[in-house]
This record gives sequence, structure tokens and C-alpha cells, in this order.
Amino acid sequence: KSSPLQFSKETYLKTRQSFLDAEEKLKIGENLTLTVKEEKANAALMRLKYAEINASRNGAPFPPSMHFFKGKSIIEKSSVFKILQKMPKGAALHLHDISLTDIWWIVKNVTYRPNCYMCQDVNKSIKFHFYANPPPNPGCPWVLVSHQRQVSGDTSKFDQMLYNSMSLVVDDPVKTYPSIDAVWVQFLHCFDVANGMINYLPVFKDYFYEALNEFRLDNVQYIELRGLLPQVYDLNGHTYDKTTVMQIYQDVFNKFKRDHKDFSGGKYIYSSIRIKSLTDILGDVKLSIALKTKFPDYFAGYDLVGQEDPGKSLLYYIDPLLYPQQQNPPINLPYFFHAGETDWEGTPTDDNLIDAVLLNTTRIGHGYALTKHPKVLHTVKQKHIAIEVNPISNQVLKLVDDLRNHPAASLIADGYPVVISADDPSVWGALGLSYDFYMAFMGMAGEDADLKFLKQLAINSLQ
Amino acid sequence: KSSPLQFSKETYLKTRQSFLDAEEKLKIGENLTLTVKEEKANAALMRLKYAEINASRNGAPFPPSMHFFKGKSIIEKSSVFKILQKMPKGAALHLHDISLTDIWWIVKNVTYRPNCYMCQDVNKSIKFHFYANPPPNPGCPWVLVSHQRQVSGDTSKFDQMLYNSMSLVVDDPVKTYPSIDAVWVQFLHCFDVANGMINYLPVFKDYFYEALNEFRLDNVQYIELRGLLPQVYDLNGHTYDKTTVMQIYQDVFNKFKRDHKDFSGGKYIYSSIRIKSLTDILGDVKLSIALKTKFPDYFAGYDLVGQEDPGKSLLYYIDPLLYPQQQNPPINLPYFFHAGETDWEGTPTDDNLIDAVLLNTTRIGHGYALTKHPKVLHTVKQKHIAIEVNPISNQVLKLVDDLRNHPAASLIADGYPVVISADDPSVWGALGLSYDFYMAFMGMAGEDADLKFLKQLAINSLQ
Ligand SMILES: [Zn+2]
Ligand SMILES: [Zn+2]
Repeated sequence: KSSPLQFSKETYLKTRQSFLDAEEKLKIGENLTLTVKEEKANAALMRLKYAEINASRNGAPFPPSMHFFKGKSIIEKSSVFKILQKMPKGAALHLHDISLTDIWWIVKNVTYRPNCYMCQDVNKSIKFHFYANPPPNPGCPWVLVSHQRQVSGDTSKFDQMLYNSMSLVVDDPVKTYPSIDAVWVQFLHCFDVANGMINYLPVFKDYFYEALNEFRLDNVQYIELRGLLPQVYDLNGHTYDKTTVMQIYQDVFNKFKRDHKDFSGGKYIYSSIRIKSLTDILGDVKLSIALKTKFPDYFAGYDLVGQEDPGKSLLYYIDPLLYPQQQNPPINLPYFFHAGETDWEGTPTDDNLIDAVLLNTTRIGHGYALTKHPKVLHTVKQKHIAIEVNPISNQVLKLVDDLRNHPAASLIADGYPVVISADDPSVWGALGLSYDFYMAFMGMAGEDADLKFLKQLAINSLQ
Repeated sequence: KSSPLQFSKETYLKTRQSFLDAEEKLKIGENLTLTVKEEKANAALMRLKYAEINASRNGAPFPPSMHFFKGKSIIEKSSVFKILQKMPKGAALHLHDISLTDIWWIVKNVTYRPNCYMCQDVNKSIKFHFYANPPPNPGCPWVLVSHQRQVSGDTSKFDQMLYNSMSLVVDDPVKTYPSIDAVWVQFLHCFDVANGMINYLPVFKDYFYEALNEFRLDNVQYIELRGLLPQVYDLNGHTYDKTTVMQIYQDVFNKFKRDHKDFSGGKYIYSSIRIKSLTDILGDVKLSIALKTKFPDYFAGYDLVGQEDPGKSLLYYIDPLLYPQQQNPPINLPYFFHAGETDWEGTPTDDNLIDAVLLNTTRIGHGYALTKHPKVLHTVKQKHIAIEVNPISNQVLKLVDDLRNHPAASLIADGYPVVISADDPSVWGALGLSYDFYMAFMGMAGEDADLKFLKQLAINSLQ
């Protein structure tokens, strides 16, 4: 293998250039052609990108290699980021319904509404709920938020405390969250706290409307949401069933589209937490089939969610998951499985990737472990299964520190059908898709990746 | 793409198993067959491996995901590690000649020798040198180490201070080394300090002999060393030229092989620091050609070393590097290029991977960025170019924190010709290959990787 090649320098440089070109052509976006106008915008964008990366290569902080809680304020000063914010980004395809809207909106709008109660138990853990008249709640007695705010004597400190109760953001995330399990405990706790308010019917509608608007203002054209179809309640203690909640979603989607002609809409993916019994999952699968018939425009399909490592595997749920296609005639229930959101190779979580593709998943949520599965990779490319990559989520939830090491970097280099999404942006203080686009553009696609890459990401998300 | 598949559960499980099997077959080692005796050893090994991984999945610390300075003491208690130490590991193919031998050997043996002088400048930076009579050295006057030790009043504290001056090991590496550049400054400084002693002729021979023995005791059968052929000196101030130094290496190699029949030897790869001028590199290439003729059994070829990002690229040196094959008749000088030891994609360092394969490199040192280069990957597989992966080096020198995210995990999963090596083990307190084998086995090859994987690594290294 070490026989001399006998290149002249000219031949060497030519061979080298065609090697570089051939490799370049494999990257996401490199088969697109830019218009003259786009070329001009691209030149300006790339000047800024090179300047920022060069500064970082010479010692300035580089946000994709920093924890997002530290890098966020640097990103917000970036000229590249400001361009990304203004750019149409297509669809956000991996989002969870209760972690979309800026938590400051909850604090400054929702907690200021009448009938908003809170309680704090002996562990200082906060709960919220709307009541006409709160019931006695021994161990955690309900008090009006407005009253608590008043007696606190410091509104801004009090509101910050409310914000903190629903957010993962802290000054020292490495110390505060020493392990994946630790960050997930707090992550799920944030949802518990916020849900008490979000699930109150008027807030529920407003929260979702506000979410759509935040994504629209971030120049996202379409969104798909995973959600549990939670138990929405009203002041009288009445609760609504899942079909009604799906109806509420559809109504808000429709209202939002009427109000904002530039937004093309979205869909809902019903999701079960992967700790349920087989019977419950079969029930959820059947419910999904019914919802798909009842809401053909807004109901997209089914997924399983929650921390994947301690959760049940897709294989565990194989009977209910095979149910739709075993009917006569077979029923088509599209799946959108979270799979392979793990660093543990060779475990059931890791193997979820195999079940996801064998169960004909429409897209893969995260697929973080994908690059350790050459045969799944092959299938993904062949069947054009989109990979929903959520850079900041994977970092904050402790799969990877430096996003240049995110496995999607190699998927991007080899033209896999990657889409970039935001997972649960509000919980880590992000907004819309732009922060995650910034990470992908600056940290995961190479110095040369340009407007063609961004355009192809948008195209991928709309396919 | 979402048409139902109509699997019965039985068919599904069969299809799934053959998918798993086909993917398994791609992994490093999965085409080997174990003997009955090996199968038995394997079962014992895997029981221990599963137990350790399960403990970590349930909250116990997991060394591959921790900084080596924190994980080392945990590794040393691991039963898997103890087995790895005893196992024949084949060849260590990526090592640097002055960072092999336990630094405690330098402290406890070399610094206790007569004529060993040290000086400390205003910045508390230490230098060592052997002299019959030290010259005046204003700013850093030479004192006998033995004298300094005596006046220190605390031998063990003094010796620890000497150790620290040549080692990267600290209690809080994240704080001490905030960036790649920062850790490299200290890394190169460690060499400067140790070189003053290592380059003293009697120590030089002993150091290298001791290195060979440490690797032999770690059950390594063969080693290839990169080195600068440094300026060796004796007590009279006489210095030796590079050809003589190569002769010294060969003599020690031969003596060691005579003394230890179970060790099969090694080779030397002459290396230039990638900051030199074109003229100097041409000189080094010519010297390499001459050394290859003069030492056909011990001189392997040529490489460029030093921190790759700030250094000159292979393309920069293309004229001298093309020199051998442009001669008439062409000369075969094997290259062993460090390439792609970077997180910066799309930069000249990243492109070094392309020049390495086009220049027909025999192996690739690190190739850390390889998975971002699908065409280079293709070439590497086709031409069977070994990738010298140094897990702990990449972690300590700050390319990756959690070794489960090391890109070689996907190379291992897809059967690339990976070899595991140790780079500069003494500087981070490792010894031989076993620590790096532990990282690869436990953190980079999946829970299922077994003795076949380890055996194939050894086979890869001996090809
Ligand atoms: Zn998700
Ligand atoms: Zn090296």
C-alpha cells in the first residue's frame, strides 16, 4: 500500500481539488444553486461567519463549544445569529407542546391573571393552579399569586423566582446537574410546575397561540408538536378529554392561520410516556387511529416520549405498536419515534433505532446514536427518513458538551436528511429555531457551510 | 414511505434479529471465531463488563465519561482493567519517544543521579541538565538537585514538585486548562522540562529501555515511536547528530530484544515539528530517505508533529513531501501523518486528512475529524489505512469530554481498521496501552463488544 504515486505538483493539486470538490458535493445543500440575489446575501453572511469563527479560533469564546447557558448571551450579540433569525427556516418538526413559549410570558402574563394560585411545600417546591375557590390543600396551602407577590416586597425578585421554578437555567449547570439523571429530574419537574397553569383552559389556548406566534416571529413557517393531550381544566373543576383537547388544538391552529396568513400551520403527534403499561399503550394507539380519522388535517401520528434510557423500549411495546398494520385491512398510523437519544451503545435504548426503522417510522426524533449503527444509517438514507436533530437539547440534557462533536456533524457532511429542531426551547431559555440553527451552522456543518446548507435544511423540513 | 409493513409478530422478531446480526457483523472483531478456551475467558470477561456498565448506568461513576485525571483511580480498581492489563495487546503504533516512561521513574531514578542540576527562573519554571561543571546561567543559576532536595527539608514534597513540573496531571483540569491552546502550552512545557534530563546520553538510553520494558510489562509486543531525533549530549558538552541518535535507538532496541525474547521489537518514525521552513522540511525528508537506507530494520518513515491547528498544513509542505516520489527512480518514503486532530471542520487542519491519503500515508495519526469526511473514510477503508486512535490523549488535550462521543465509536461499529494507542501516556499519568484499551472497550465499542473486539484490535495493530 505504500507504493509511490508519482504525482507532479500540478497533478497533485488537481487531484486534490477534485477530491475536495467531490467531498463537498456530498454535504447537505451542496447540490443547490443560489440565485444571484442569494449569492450576494451569501457573500455577506459568509464574511460574518468567517470573521466570527476566526475570532474564536484565536481565543474568543465559541458558543457551540460552551454550555448554552453560558453561550446564549454571546450568540445574541452575533451578527450571524441576527441574520439567521431573519431567515425563513421552514418547519420545526421536533417540539413538545408545553415547552415552547417563553417562560417570561408565563410569568408576566399568566401568573398576573386573576384566580392564579400557588403553593409551596416543605421542600420549597412550587405548584400553580387556577381556582374559583381553592380547596384546602394540607401540606401545601393555596395562596393567590398576586397576594404572594405583594407580600414578597420585591416584584422583580419574586417573578424571577417564579421563572426559575419552571426553567433549567442556572449559573453553574455543570455543578447543578452532575448527571443525565439529575438534569432529567429537574427537567420533568419544570413541566410539572408549569403544567398547573398551562392546563387551565384559557391559558392553554393562549399559551399555544403565543407559541405559534413566537415561532412565526422567528421566521418558522410550520410546526409539528408532540404532546400528551393533557387534562385541560376550567375554573369550575371541569376537565376535558383527549379528543376535546385535540379539538382545542385544531381550533387554535385554525384561528392562528386566519390571523396570520404567512404561517402555513402545523400538526400534532400524540405521545405516550414510555413507562405506561402495554394495555395503556394499546389504548393510546387505538385513540391515535381514531384521532387520525377525526382530525385528518391536524393529527399526524404517534410517538413515545420521556427519558429513553430508564424508559421501556420500543421492543417492549411491540404488540401494541404492530396493532395498526395487523388489522384487516391494515391501518396506516404514522410513527414519529424518539429513538437513540443516548450515549449508551449496545443497550435497549440504542436498539430503539432498529425498531424505529423496522416499524417504518416517518422520522426519527434525535437519533443521537445513529452514527454507531451503519445498517440503520443505510436504511435512513435509502428510505429518506428525516433525522430530527436538536443540538441545544442534546447539550443541555448532557449527551454532548462541545457541539462540534455532535454526531450529526457527520450526517451533515454526508448529506443525510437532517432537520434541525428545538425540542423544548423554553426550558433552557431559547426561543424558536434560531439558536439551534446557529449551533448547526457554526458548530456542526464546517466553516464552509453557507446559505445553501441553511436553504437545504429548510427544504428538508418541508418534505 | 409510511405504507404499513404487515408483519406478524414472529416475522417482525425474525427480521429484527437478522437486522441486529447483520449490523453486529460489521463491527470490529465480529468476523473472528474464538477457541473454546477463549470463549470461556470471554464469558468471564463479559460478566465483569456488564456488571461494571450496569453499575454505571445506575449511577456509579463511568470512567470513559469522566476526565482521565478523575477516572484513573476508578479504572485501577476495575476488574475489567486488570484483565486488559494481562491480555496481549499487539502493537502500540502511535507513541512519542519522550512521553512514554512513567515520570516517577524520572523523578526517583534520574533526578537522584550524580551531576543532575536544576534551575528555577523568576517564573518558577524549572529546567534540568546534567553537567560535570555547570556554566554560569544568569537568571536561572544551576544547583545540584541533590542539594535542593536536601535543603527543601521534605523529600516527598520536593519529589512531587519535580513530578508536577513534567506532568499535566492536576486536581482540577477543567479550571487549569480552559482551552485547547492552554493545555497545549503546558503540554509542550512538560516536554521542555523533561528533555533536559532525557537527552543526557546515559539517561537517554535508560529512558528508552525503561519505556520498552513498561510497555512489555503491560503486555504490548511491539512499538513504533515518533520522535525528533533530539540533540543528545554528554557530560563533556559533546552533542550527537541525528544519525548517531538513530544508531543509539537501534542499539537499545537490539539490546532490549536480546534481554527480552518475548518482545518482538519496534520501529522509529522521524518527525518534524510543523512550524519549520520548507527548506528545513526538505532537509528532514532527505535525511529520512538516508536513514531508511542506513537503518532498514528500525527506521519506518516520516511524520509531522505538534499542535495541528496553529501549525502548518501538509499542503503548505507539499513540495518537500512530494520530493521522494518525484525522484528518478521514485523513492518510497513511507509517511505516517498526524492528520485531522481537530474539532474545527473545514479548516486546513481538517483538510490534512485529504492530503494524508493523497500522499499515500501508511497510517493516519488520530484522524479525529475523519467521520466528517465521507470520501476520506471511503479511501481509508478501501486502502486499509490504519487509524491510530488515542482516546485519552484526545480527551486530555480537549477534543472531547465524554469518550462515548469519540468519533472512533462509529469507525469501530463499521469495521474500519482502527488501532488503539497511547500517544503520550506518561504526561497524563497513564502507563502502556491498557488505559486506552479500557476506554475503547468500555466506552467506545458498545456494551456487547467482547474478546473478539480486543483480539481484532491486536490483529489490526500487527498488520
Ligand atoms: Zn423530544
Ligand atoms: Zn501524536
